[in-house]
Amino acid sequence: MDYTFNEQMMVKFDSMLGWMTAIFKAAGMNGKDAHNCAHHLVMADARGVYSHGCMRMGVYCGRLIDGGTNPKGQPKIVKRKGCTILVDGDNAMGPVVGIFAMKAAIKLAKKFGSATASVFGSNHIGACAYYVMMAADADMIGFSWTVGAANLMAPWGGRDPRLGNNPLGIAVPCEGKPHVVIDMAQSVVARGKIVMARKTRTPIPDTWALGNDGKPTTDPEAALLGTLQPVGGYKGYGMAFMTGIVTTSLSGAAFGPQIMDIYGRPDATQNAGHLFQVIDISALGAPEEFKNRVHDAVMYMKEAQKADGVKEILVPGEAEAQHLERQLRDGISYPIEVIEELRKLSQKLGVAAKI
Amino acid sequence: MDYTFNEQMMVKFDSMLGWMTAIFKAAGMNGKDAHNCAHHLVMADARGVYSHGCMRMGVYCGRLIDGGTNPKGQPKIVKRKGCTILVDGDNAMGPVVGIFAMKAAIKLAKKFGSATASVFGSNHIGACAYYVMMAADADMIGFSWTVGAANLMAPWGGRDPRLGNNPLGIAVPCEGKPHVVIDMAQSVVARGKIVMARKTRTPIPDTWALGNDGKPTTDPEAALLGTLQPVGGYKGYGMAFMTGIVTTSLSGAAFGPQIMDIYGRPDATQNAGHLFQVIDISALGAPEEFKNRVHDAVMYMKEAQKADGVKEILVPGEAEAQHLERQLRDGISYPIEVIEELRKLSQKLGVAAKI
Repeated sequence: MDYTFNEQMMVKFDSMLGWMTAIFKAAGMNGKDAHNCAHHLVMADARGVYSHGCMRMGVYCGRLIDGGTNPKGQPKIVKRKGCTILVDGDNAMGPVVGIFAMKAAIKLAKKFGSATASVFGSNHIGACAYYVMMAADADMIGFSWTVGAANLMAPWGGRDPRLGNNPLGIAVPCEGKPHVVIDMAQSVVARGKIVMARKTRTPIPDTWALGNDGKPTTDPEAALLGTLQPVGGYKGYGMAFMTGIVTTSLSGAAFGPQIMDIYGRPDATQNAGHLFQVIDISALGAPEEFKNRVHDAVMYMKEAQKADGVKEILVPGEAEAQHLERQLRDGISYPIEVIEELRKLSQKLGVAAKI
Repeated sequence: MDYTFNEQMMVKFDSMLGWMTAIFKAAGMNGKDAHNCAHHLVMADARGVYSHGCMRMGVYCGRLIDGGTNPKGQPKIVKRKGCTILVDGDNAMGPVVGIFAMKAAIKLAKKFGSATASVFGSNHIGACAYYVMMAADADMIGFSWTVGAANLMAPWGGRDPRLGNNPLGIAVPCEGKPHVVIDMAQSVVARGKIVMARKTRTPIPDTWALGNDGKPTTDPEAALLGTLQPVGGYKGYGMAFMTGIVTTSLSGAAFGPQIMDIYGRPDATQNAGHLFQVIDISALGAPEEFKNRVHDAVMYMKEAQKADGVKEILVPGEAEAQHLERQLRDGISYPIEVIEELRKLSQKLGVAAKI
């Protein structure tokens, strides 16, 4: 979240949405799916989660064009029992699959009080927060479990990368305030931060990565040949492993040696997996009462005594909500490099650059 | 898990189970509930999770006798919709409530493919692993979310304790191997480790706790006046907060200022909350196929290259399963102090000490 840009460009949400939609259409997607994927990415940027926003357009479009991802893919429910469904993503874009599965789960939860959707045949899902907030929008609790699109972490005590940083997302609605949301990878930092440290030849904290000897390192070069450290050591390893297992063992999606790095061959299918769980608050009580309780809990955190130098105590998702409010109003701040890359991509696909 | 005992005593699982059952009966519980609670605690010890085993008998019995917990409490389903239930724990012992709610969820998942049980009016649940393993025993995936029985952590950026270390438990069955299980609190270490460091006047790592100024400290004395650090900083804070919210906002169980420390007044009710989610594997595929996939994933972790000095790479729950196998065979190893405390408690309740 702590990005520093040398040169920035402010772009209105709707301008960016229209432009990205046009690019996805040029890459072969229908209008509705192109719009949904574009909305997913621009929303991530507007929330300040740039790592999962439009800067990934290049790799997504490369995969759509080279056949790794199917631009025409249409997810479908292939098995169901009661409130529980298995979704075949048909190798569509991750957000197309995620939105389909979450919508289906929300519909089932209306009937059964809660619901579960297990997914295979998907692709990189983007920011999990998007899907669990769909549940919160419907006055439900949303949970999202996903396998990361590359193995970056070693099992605890090991030294070769065999685990993704498999994020967990949870959202709940809150009275008078934005949804409370976590969207949490299981590594201490994203690999991109180490790439950045190598560029600037800065040592990294010894808590970020292990060298390929399995020992902590402060050398970004050694770190990039090694593995990322999981949050809390064996605890983050445990979470990453269990998240992977509940997501893929149920659906048959790729895990371990089957995981294809999203930055690898753009013609290779990923068979990514997700697991969504939804609880309809109104099944067990009044949503207003639930949201008031969340509000009280939020205020109890925010009103804690602050450590020196801390201006405001935030609850999960609040920083992103503050970004969103500001960037919806003032425009989204992009590094010029991202815009230039998008212009090149746009030109390559014969789409008039709209920025 | 890394306990060192000066003087140990080996006790057979069944002897301990019989003795603890007798004590719970003397404290007012019926035979079945007393057995279930005793089984829960002795199983924690046998798995090497002593912090959640019989060393807690004193505080549990104190609460049963002084009225904080109802020895005759009988949990019931007070609301239901489809596969989703609200359980009133009737202020019974945590394991009585947890076993009731998990059994009900498993039964519902057989019919609907998955199920959700939200719980209020409970007490300290003990080790979450126990409940999620009930689901795994039934060829299901089990999830357990719980509020801890005391506020020990500050919100990120704060300095007074406003959050429990709210554990998450997940279990899945595995072909030819023990269930894979996590049961994970959201603090870096248990408070007991800092108490131990104070006793031995040993400095603690600066990653364990914050002083009451909200800054990391290596002084155990200062740490005990401050708060525990969450795993991975803001990530563990996020997990602890969300776990608390999904558990209590749905059920109306205690959160924040309503949390009563389990070591506080033994006559005060706790209104502890839990959330259980269960997915029946057979709803979406063959359990054998699922368990084979888990087995392959486990082996992929175990066969990773090891860091120097690492003898074996373990998957979550494996260390506990190794303890269990050994201690079921050879007896459970207890520190003599724990046995002596239990003897005193036993005598006080008029139960012949069986060890």
